[in-house]
Amino acid sequence: MTDSLFLTNSIQLPSGFSFSAVAAGMKASGRPDLALVNCSSGTTAAAVFTTNRVAAAPVHVGREALRASRGLVRAVIVNSGNANCATGEQGVRSCQQVCRATARGLGVKCHEVFPSSTGIIGVPLPVNRIVAKLPELVAKQAASAEAFREFAQSIMTTDTRPKLACAAVPVRGGTATILGVAKGSGMIHPKLATMLVYLFTDMVAGPGRLRRTLVEVCDQTFNCISVDGDTSTNDTVLLLASGRSEIPSNGAASNIFRGALLEVCQSLAHQIVSDGEGIQHVIELAVEDARSREEALRVARTIAHSPLVKTAWAGADPNWGRILAAIGNSGVPIKPSAVNIYIGQQQVCRGGCANGFDERAAHEHLSQSECKVRVQIGRGRHAVRFYTTDLSAEYVRINADYST
Amino acid sequence: MTDSLFLTNSIQLPSGFSFSAVAAGMKASGRPDLALVNCSSGTTAAAVFTTNRVAAAPVHVGREALRASRGLVRAVIVNSGNANCATGEQGVRSCQQVCRATARGLGVKCHEVFPSSTGIIGVPLPVNRIVAKLPELVAKQAASAEAFREFAQSIMTTDTRPKLACAAVPVRGGTATILGVAKGSGMIHPKLATMLVYLFTDMVAGPGRLRRTLVEVCDQTFNCISVDGDTSTNDTVLLLASGRSEIPSNGAASNIFRGALLEVCQSLAHQIVSDGEGIQHVIELAVEDARSREEALRVARTIAHSPLVKTAWAGADPNWGRILAAIGNSGVPIKPSAVNIYIGQQQVCRGGCANGFDERAAHEHLSQSECKVRVQIGRGRHAVRFYTTDLSAEYVRINADYST
Repeated sequence: MTDSLFLTNSIQLPSGFSFSAVAAGMKASGRPDLALVNCSSGTTAAAVFTTNRVAAAPVHVGREALRASRGLVRAVIVNSGNANCATGEQGVRSCQQVCRATARGLGVKCHEVFPSSTGIIGVPLPVNRIVAKLPELVAKQAASAEAFREFAQSIMTTDTRPKLACAAVPVRGGTATILGVAKGSGMIHPKLATMLVYLFTDMVAGPGRLRRTLVEVCDQTFNCISVDGDTSTNDTVLLLASGRSEIPSNGAASNIFRGALLEVCQSLAHQIVSDGEGIQHVIELAVEDARSREEALRVARTIAHSPLVKTAWAGADPNWGRILAAIGNSGVPIKPSAVNIYIGQQQVCRGGCANGFDERAAHEHLSQSECKVRVQIGRGRHAVRFYTTDLSAEYVRINADYST
Repeated sequence: MTDSLFLTNSIQLPSGFSFSAVAAGMKASGRPDLALVNCSSGTTAAAVFTTNRVAAAPVHVGREALRASRGLVRAVIVNSGNANCATGEQGVRSCQQVCRATARGLGVKCHEVFPSSTGIIGVPLPVNRIVAKLPELVAKQAASAEAFREFAQSIMTTDTRPKLACAAVPVRGGTATILGVAKGSGMIHPKLATMLVYLFTDMVAGPGRLRRTLVEVCDQTFNCISVDGDTSTNDTVLLLASGRSEIPSNGAASNIFRGALLEVCQSLAHQIVSDGEGIQHVIELAVEDARSREEALRVARTIAHSPLVKTAWAGADPNWGRILAAIGNSGVPIKPSAVNIYIGQQQVCRGGCANGFDERAAHEHLSQSECKVRVQIGRGRHAVRFYTTDLSAEYVRINADYST
């Protein structure tokens, strides 16, 4: 995963978008927690959502809005500090009320407003406080890097830093831009399907193309990370294309567009994992020689969700036996004698058995902030690269004292 | 789950079994780590094993021995401190060598010796040290409560206490006895399929009946517990019937036998969870109104394996939103509006939404060492009672520093 696109000090705003954020009193800290993106007329959109059956109200409302508008979006309204989840019919009505008020304030149609929420589950959304702040939010809009940074800050919850990435899309006839922003550090196992990701571009693209490209890119990025294996109720990735660059994304530009979007999403996915709650190590986990990509993912997820493997990583312990036990537990009918495991450059397990290795060097490799673990299961030719974390006592402390 | 059978101060030995234990140098502490059960002639047996594809050598050898002997067992040889797993063909040969030497020492057939191992994965079994200790082990055998206690101590690894239970089986014509012993406190999610459980009875029962009864009882006990969701490579439950009471287990006695075995196994399962690594709370999790028992188990396991739910329990935090999110993430197509959640006596979630409740009382309930959480998913009439634990910073500490 390349970090070459960490252009956080030189944000390139795609034209056609303006941003703003205000404090509406949902975060206990009093920090900004309500944010707006205003999109120029004709902006197309595609989104992927959580696969959790308990999807939050804004997920239902946002999905329906995209359907009703046939993939056109004029505004995104996001609040942090309240997930508007497990709030029943009232939660849906509250979300619709916020969308209506936003539409009125901007002079656009209600179903052209896309809502998101992130924060605690099961608490009613404070609609009146949000609606009261909308005039200020609308008045503050600016198409500036500063306004975009405030937007990125305002959607954070337990995140310790904003997550931004941008890429240039150089095609014949000019250069377009893709800019992405993400939040999320716990309940991270996005099976996209409370990670929120917004991707902005000024390319010209119909909703159908946007959707196909987004699904493909998400599958290789946000679907290949896990902090704690808990899939949130509010996960949303939204891709918006203003068309303002007048550069089409079809034909020869199609691969360049997909490649640039992939780089932006890889960077954001990596930033999310690196900011995982209480983590000390990011593990790049490669699962190779599977019969299918799905099978490789299944093995990767079982390893990434094993508390025994994750706590060994917290201790920089090259305990490959726990990794092998997790592979055996994945439901994939592996033959133990066909399994190889590498930690960093060293092979620690050969054909399901111990392979003499330098324990000190393996411990040192796992002591780094970024570590590599590679697993070969000897069944086929498919592979996956998965990013996950250790499980630290600090993760437990953060999560043992959150709602009360 | 009744604790009425915690007869650890009055162990009733079923006749036909003698026990011994010695130190063979596998445990770093120098404590006893090699143990023997000698069974009288004609003892029948049934066993269930781990479903992990990476099964340890003694699992393969033990399964094969039961097949070759048609369910007759004359001895059980157990070592702790070394799992003899991920040791390849050499591991199998080492295990067979130990069985052969044990058989010679006792004058029985090699396939009448049942082996078990528990401890670290991937380290060669020190066969010579084990074989050298066999004469002492054979000489020490005794049919006494004291010898049985030593056996129970010697099979422990990270366990903080031995786990014992016994029950009387009063039938027409006399009273038989069932005595059980277990070890295990991490890598506990036995899907029986490194929990080791040995059950001894003096009833008369053919291997077929033993097997049917054991599978049924395991499904309701050891398959309904989880500490960390990691299924071990060495899990084994072995039931031995000496027949010495001359009381048959068929006909009218069949239900009484099954009921007594169920009580012993429930007690041992509860003791295993209560001794889970670093745990502060045992959670009795009831999942109700499922379409099938399998579906209820699936929901229970998803809740029991959610790090966010388990860390909330560590903080005695009545965060029902995380429980609801886990239910939505189970793969069971629940309708959120049909879900109810109770903590202790209080309903905290009704129809997928917040239900006004006394947070202080809920926090106090979850502060106890034994807590009750009940979930109704509104899909049918099946239910399961599952025992699990919180996830504490202490669990992380124990497991971040084990092999190195």
